[in-house]
Amino acid sequence: MFIGEVIGTVVATRKTANMDGLPLRLVRKITPGLQPTATYTIAVDVMGASEGELVLVSSGSSARQTLQTDARPCDAIIMAIVDTWQVDGAVQYTKGEVEPV
Amino acid sequence: MFIGEVIGTVVATRKTANMDGLPLRLVRKITPGLQPTATYTIAVDVMGASEGELVLVSSGSSARQTLQTDARPCDAIIMAIVDTWQVDGAVQYTKGEVEPV
Amino acid sequence: MFIGEVIGTVVATRKTANMDGLPLRLVRKITPGLQPTATYTIAVDVMGASEGELVLVSSGSSARQTLQTDARPCDAIIMAIVDTWQVDGAVQYTKGEVEPV
Amino acid sequence: MFIGEVIGTVVATRKTANMDGLPLRLVRKITPGLQPTATYTIAVDVMGASEGELVLVSSGSSARQTLQTDARPCDAIIMAIVDTWQVDGAVQYTKGEVEPV
Amino acid sequence: MFIGEVIGTVVATRKTANMDGLPLRLVRKITPGLQPTATYTIAVDVMGASEGELVLVSSGSSARQTLQTDARPCDAIIMAIVDTWQVDGAVQYTKGEVEPV
Repeated sequence: MFIGEVIGTVVATRKTANMDGLPLRLVRKITPGLQPTATYTIAVDVMGASEGELVLVSSGSSARQTLQTDARPCDAIIMAIVDTWQVDGAVQYTKGEVEPV
Repeated sequence: MFIGEVIGTVVATRKTANMDGLPLRLVRKITPGLQPTATYTIAVDVMGASEGELVLVSSGSSARQTLQTDARPCDAIIMAIVDTWQVDGAVQYTKGEVEPV
Repeated sequence: MFIGEVIGTVVATRKTANMDGLPLRLVRKITPGLQPTATYTIAVDVMGASEGELVLVSSGSSARQTLQTDARPCDAIIMAIVDTWQVDGAVQYTKGEVEPV
Repeated sequence: MFIGEVIGTVVATRKTANMDGLPLRLVRKITPGLQPTATYTIAVDVMGASEGELVLVSSGSSARQTLQTDARPCDAIIMAIVDTWQVDGAVQYTKGEVEPV
Repeated sequence: MFIGEVIGTVVATRKTANMDGLPLRLVRKITPGLQPTATYTIAVDVMGASEGELVLVSSGSSARQTLQTDARPCDAIIMAIVDTWQVDGAVQYTKGEVEPV
């Protein structure tokens, strides 16, 4: 998985029938030190994430291991909303607080 | 998934039998800011996309999760045609309008 | 899938039993503009491609979706031989003709 | 698989139900010469690794081939804790000793 | 698949139970022109390769398509030992001879 920030939403009314009703979010990968990267993914959001939230994205066949995405042609999902993480014993991020970096 | 622009078509009359009848499109990946990239994929088009349209491409085993591509040796499909997307609350692209960037 | 040129052959007499009889080809990825790249793959050739031919390579679990490669430990196959492709309405390559670039 | 160092922990209380109880660790990939890289993965830890330990990370569908992760939307796991490795006959790392490089 | 050189061995006594008895080798990817690269993989060796031998590595779910690795959390295997390969009609490598480059 990787940590990403939800930065937007994609709308596609014409899609394969089995993708109906699955929200598509634009996610920008960020580093553990909270730096944005140039890597973007369109992920199905099964968590109801809000814009600006930091999330975990799971890719590949693992993206189909939920009730909502089973047997769907989606290769990335938001499967968690991050509360906090620490690196080398120091908190890097806590949801709802000002970013410490 | 990633956002791409359909830029061309590939014709291959000699292919594995189970690929017959599946159109092959050349798709160039683009950034959320509408910049073209140097990344290209040949994807099976199950949506009937036109050249110049922006589409979503799903890769890997997820590309086989449609009736048309089930059990086929294809590793990428066009599974949606993009109508619009927004980043940080601002519309980046709307199908049929002049590109805003 | 990606477009590649068959540039060579690999011989390996010691291999897992279920790989016996599957020809292994060296394929160099090329761009849609016919430029060679530094990316190479060893692919099982289920099409009988010749050296110098441009082919489509399918990767990952999709490489096992043929009768010859089902349940084999191969992660890339040549699944088509390219006749022609066009980009932005202009033919980039036609098999058997001098390359237009 | 790749060799990585466990450098931190991610906490996410909101996640898909089938991810409950699976610890999420931040792993930094390192080279065989013990140099840290800029590549990070969030992996499910099925081994109980400690921070600072060097581990093996398995990715993709292979990350679901354990009792704990079967059918879960996780695309990376810590599946081993490294004791030692050697390159060209010379020991590069031995767990518990000062790093030889 | 890619061509790699076996350059070392990894020992991990603490690993998931279903990885017991599977040797782990360090493999450095090399180019068709016999140049070493900075890409390394830890692969399960089902062939009994020796250090210095050139091998083929298969990745992803394809790494589980052998009796020894079926349903194991390994994402790369050595599935062949290379005898020889040629590029553009010229032999690049023959096992047991001095490397021609």
